Amino acid sequence: MLYNAEFALQRINGELLLLELGDNPRELYEPLRYILGLGGKRLRPMLTLLACSMFSEDFTKALKPALAIEVFHNFSLIHDDIMDQALVRRGKPTVHEKWDIPTAILSGDVALVEAYKLMIQVEDNLKMKAFSLFSQVAKEVCEGQQMDMLFEKKEKVSVAEYMEMIRLKTAVLLGFSLQIGGLVGGSTDSDAEKLKSFGQNIGLAFQIKDDYLDSFGDGPKVGKTIGGDIRVNKKTFLFTKSLEIGNSEASKRLLELYSKEDNSDQKVHEVLEIYKHLNIKEECEKEIFNLYNQSISNLIGIKADMHKTARLRRFADELMERVS
Amino acid sequence: MLYNAEFALQRINGELLLLELGDNPRELYEPLRYILGLGGKRLRPMLTLLACSMFSEDFTKALKPALAIEVFHNFSLIHDDIMDQALVRRGKPTVHEKWDIPTAILSGDVALVEAYKLMIQVEDNLKMKAFSLFSQVAKEVCEGQQMDMLFEKKEKVSVAEYMEMIRLKTAVLLGFSLQIGGLVGGSTDSDAEKLKSFGQNIGLAFQIKDDYLDSFGDGPKVGKTIGGDIRVNKKTFLFTKSLEIGNSEASKRLLELYSKEDNSDQKVHEVLEIYKHLNIKEECEKEIFNLYNQSISNLIGIKADMHKTARLRRFADELMERVS
Repeated sequence: MLYNAEFALQRINGELLLLELGDNPRELYEPLRYILGLGGKRLRPMLTLLACSMFSEDFTKALKPALAIEVFHNFSLIHDDIMDQALVRRGKPTVHEKWDIPTAILSGDVALVEAYKLMIQVEDNLKMKAFSLFSQVAKEVCEGQQMDMLFEKKEKVSVAEYMEMIRLKTAVLLGFSLQIGGLVGGSTDSDAEKLKSFGQNIGLAFQIKDDYLDSFGDGPKVGKTIGGDIRVNKKTFLFTKSLEIGNSEASKRLLELYSKEDNSDQKVHEVLEIYKHLNIKEECEKEIFNLYNQSISNLIGIKADMHKTARLRRFADELMERVS
Repeated sequence: MLYNAEFALQRINGELLLLELGDNPRELYEPLRYILGLGGKRLRPMLTLLACSMFSEDFTKALKPALAIEVFHNFSLIHDDIMDQALVRRGKPTVHEKWDIPTAILSGDVALVEAYKLMIQVEDNLKMKAFSLFSQVAKEVCEGQQMDMLFEKKEKVSVAEYMEMIRLKTAVLLGFSLQIGGLVGGSTDSDAEKLKSFGQNIGLAFQIKDDYLDSFGDGPKVGKTIGGDIRVNKKTFLFTKSLEIGNSEASKRLLELYSKEDNSDQKVHEVLEIYKHLNIKEECEKEIFNLYNQSISNLIGIKADMHKTARLRRFADELMERVS
């Protein structure tokens, strides 16, 4: 089946609806069906299919691992939402809000098992590799989430610590989505590694862009108020970079502002002034640009049709151009 | 390595200490090491090694799956303790009490991944079978826990529903512990199935004995007050059986007593009177005896040394004789 983005998305959504999860007790599986049904861009499974299509005429070979990754992603969303006490996900109540915390814990657990079951449905010679890589990624995502929570309690976080956290929490899963897609499509290990690096770098860029837009985005276009991260004292790339390059006076004031529970416009304004003073906007843009360049250079030498590799470059470009 | 119970237990505890779980962030892995370090009888991994020893001279072949099962069991303990709001486990604070709920959720998640990684460390020809059986058991344990929680909100639970709940929540893991041990030791599929049935039946008997002791045990010997289950309105075998065989008057009164939050001695006394009136003690003993007999008959025809099979029978006997 030749790759076509629209068709690929349809297949993913169709297969997610048809997943045989189990039915009994209903209360265990309904929350998983619910969150899978909330939609979204299906970024990760789309990357898996796209990577597969670079090496195989039939991208549907990678459907099962693609679904595995989406189910795993939703496992982490269900559990993260409990930890973050989030009330809303994609405009709807989170699982623990709609049901309760015990149900959300268990539905997440069962989602992790389902993800494993799907992940192993690749050709025999790839099963153990898929299993090992996936297990490693699953651990790393947990590590990243734990780091993120630890950061909430820390006063200072270095840029290096921050980068490691987003690498684990977000980027490794994007990298793996591409890597496993490539392998299933028949790529060499080395090409799959290149895809993985591409995915990780673009994932890092994506996350920093997210931080960037929260402070420097076009409010109405982003669809949210500017400075949400600042109001809740979130340790972002901007915050950690400021501590790294700011003089002691700027750092002291920033830490002071971040030490209080204060979600006022005044606080946002003052933090943004510090960012402006330290050229953080430009620092961000430089970092995003560097990561973007690295990701593009990761694609060099991949043995696939040029126009297929170009799809990935276009994908990276689209992510870079996003404003929300 | 010839099987010896004391040595097997030492090996399990030694290997649990040496598990390479990861170190970073410390806060993610420490809770798992903590709960694994709380000790216990290591019932499940001991069964795995014992089953392996029935078919192989070297019971240590089954160490990895045995550890997998113990790690999985502790995953479920960590998450169940959150759901049950339990404060104490083996005389020590539960993980979410000692740390916090987010840490307990994540440590549990990572434990499930570790369990998978250990489970797959069997001979190549068994890897996929171990994976599939384990995935199925993992789902069933979640299903059982969800049913248990649903029972809390239900007024009535039938004996059949109750039996299905304890089968899923407790018995299938005991059955699997033996089944995988047998398979790793080199048993036929059919013999492994027999071991599984034995384990499930003995697991059911064990659970009903637990309910039994709570109402009819020798308080001081059991080491806890009689009627703990009654005080918290727990739907036990005794309760469900009473509803099944009692006349409408007895059922009505029992439901009434169970509808209030009342942990008084008076309530315990009255419920025990109903049980006495309905001969629930004898019903329990009959059920336990039946399950015990079934479990023993499950062992018939297993192609292993008689004295090795006898170890399992002794194990069953010990469980039946326990008073606490």
